[in-house]
Amino acid sequence: MAGMETESATGEHGYSPDKDAYIKRLRRIEGQVRGLQRMIDDDTYCIDVLTQVSAITKALQSVAVGLVGQHMKHCVANAATNDPEHLDEMVGEATKAIERLLRS
Amino acid sequence: MAGMETESATGEHGYSPDKDAYIKRLRRIEGQVRGLQRMIDDDTYCIDVLTQVSAITKALQSVAVGLVGQHMKHCVANAATNDPEHLDEMVGEATKAIERLLRS
Amino acid sequence: MAGMETESATGEHGYSPDKDAYIKRLRRIEGQVRGLQRMIDDDTYCIDVLTQVSAITKALQSVAVGLVGQHMKHCVANAATNDPEHLDEMVGEATKAIERLLRS
Amino acid sequence: MAGMETESATGEHGYSPDKDAYIKRLRRIEGQVRGLQRMIDDDTYCIDVLTQVSAITKALQSVAVGLVGQHMKHCVANAATNDPEHLDEMVGEATKAIERLLRS
Repeated sequence: MAGMETESATGEHGYSPDKDAYIKRLRRIEGQVRGLQRMIDDDTYCIDVLTQVSAITKALQSVAVGLVGQHMKHCVANAATNDPEHLDEMVGEATKAIERLLRS
Repeated sequence: MAGMETESATGEHGYSPDKDAYIKRLRRIEGQVRGLQRMIDDDTYCIDVLTQVSAITKALQSVAVGLVGQHMKHCVANAATNDPEHLDEMVGEATKAIERLLRS
Repeated sequence: MAGMETESATGEHGYSPDKDAYIKRLRRIEGQVRGLQRMIDDDTYCIDVLTQVSAITKALQSVAVGLVGQHMKHCVANAATNDPEHLDEMVGEATKAIERLLRS
Repeated sequence: MAGMETESATGEHGYSPDKDAYIKRLRRIEGQVRGLQRMIDDDTYCIDVLTQVSAITKALQSVAVGLVGQHMKHCVANAATNDPEHLDEMVGEATKAIERLLRS
């Protein structure tokens, strides 16, 4: 049952081959959040702080979109081929995740 | 010209009295971004990673909303009272900042 | 008490001078929503339907940003000048409205 | 080649079996947009207009999330099973659609 193993808690996931790239992007985002703390500590003008918050949010959303794409390409596609009785469940949790992203 | 000084690059801003609280919130967000890196490094299931991205985005947007509110209460209100000829400009940049938040 | 009258339920509001322009924009959005119904009725490809949904959402958000800007310029600024004891309340409801926009 | 036909410009799509329900939801949204025009025409308080804009945006996004889910369940899953060489392309356009929704 390759399909189920693929989605086990400890196994490989859609994004796994790009793990290093994702961690690198998140490290950059972490640095941007630290930069935001300095901006506030330095009494930077509110509007410039807000511009930076938008940039970080955009970077985070872009990571999320990448993960959603790889989830579709690997996990959803894999369920369709190898594990069709779990396809509905898998699509259901993916759409709920997209809904949470849209609400945040 | 209190109105103009308030908005100088180095002066006090609407959020200044709450600086410590904002920095504390951003430090927590920084920790959440580090947690995200660990989740990816540990091959956490994509959907759980996405849930965490949504939580961080929500926390960041909440910081942004707080800053916008204090910007209105202090900077916009101050311009209205002490510096009316700059009110249009100030409201214009605040609405552009809100637009950027909505687009991110 | 010009400040209070301006915000009465039946009075003039920040957007009132641009009423016709707003109604015109909303009529166009209404037409776009009708177009969406035709797209679905014609079995248009899902992705093209989604592109149209994004366009409508963007148009609606742009109306909202315009209203927020005029609310700041007129209602918030007016409260700051003529009705300072209600400024907090007015800014509070404006930030809550922005928060709802970000969550939608 | 069922997979390709399913995605032809004129054929059935993931949402087709729920066409009537989608059109009904969009008709309700159309009515809400008309209600918004009346609110502005009646000089309704800006914040109440904004609350209504948020409600409409939420309803539209919810339609979009439904379409994305059915796109995954039918078109993506179908490509995975019957048309694997187009899977990348199909996932690519779906993620771009989600990105546009997040930016709007």
